[in-house]
Amino acid sequence: MKIRGIHHIAIAVDDLDRYSDIFKKLFDLETGEIEISATDNTSLTFIDLKNCELEFLKPLNDDSSMARFLEKRGPGIHHFCLTVENIVEALEELKAKDIELIDQTPRPGAGGSLIAFIHPRSAGGILIELKQDKEE
Amino acid sequence: MKIRGIHHIAIAVDDLDRYSDIFKKLFDLETGEIEISATDNTSLTFIDLKNCELEFLKPLNDDSSMARFLEKRGPGIHHFCLTVENIVEALEELKAKDIELIDQTPRPGAGGSLIAFIHPRSAGGILIELKQDKEE
Repeated sequence: MKIRGIHHIAIAVDDLDRYSDIFKKLFDLETGEIEISATDNTSLTFIDLKNCELEFLKPLNDDSSMARFLEKRGPGIHHFCLTVENIVEALEELKAKDIELIDQTPRPGAGGSLIAFIHPRSAGGILIELKQDKEE
Repeated sequence: MKIRGIHHIAIAVDDLDRYSDIFKKLFDLETGEIEISATDNTSLTFIDLKNCELEFLKPLNDDSSMARFLEKRGPGIHHFCLTVENIVEALEELKAKDIELIDQTPRPGAGGSLIAFIHPRSAGGILIELKQDKEE
């Protein structure tokens, strides 16, 4: 598969405003609008880091893997996302290598993108998202 | 301070070769040479992700914050590193805002760079490294 680079680093947080304030104070970086992902049941916002983005994610229910992550570890880096050229081909390639996927087929992500998560069991315990941008 | 972007995402692991194999299988990405950081008492290797790098870090002793991280959580994303234009100015700016630093002054990083870590207590529990590349 053709990887174009890191799209974003995602941080699981318990309070989006608090983290916006922290990163504003630290680096004078502004978060964007707060969006809601109905599919993932999260609220989220991004900071533009020039070559990629920082995403703050807050779970909206207590019964999700992200809520469990927060409860167990507290706020922290949750996953990273790689931009791929063709996500359908990428997932087929991974399946052919017996890689376990959370999403068997791509699903809609922010801004008309397509996304899918690889299962941490096949990635040494690390949660990795794949994304194909809209323009492809 | 002037932030140029993400330099790398660092993953704490218990076995560099195992993670090289995992990422080779997943994405056909190759890790570079294994380096030793005497200062941090870690062995490490990088994968080039085009717009930034992925770093695998393995602690070489049991008595470090990274060894405790691994013991507590298992392998996982440990920190991320931002490239700044001028690390001395960046640290002065942070100190003036009462941000707690792990490194009060820059110290030598890989490839002639200068690095310093911000304390997670001042960054919402997230460990952030700053780096100034050699050519500055």
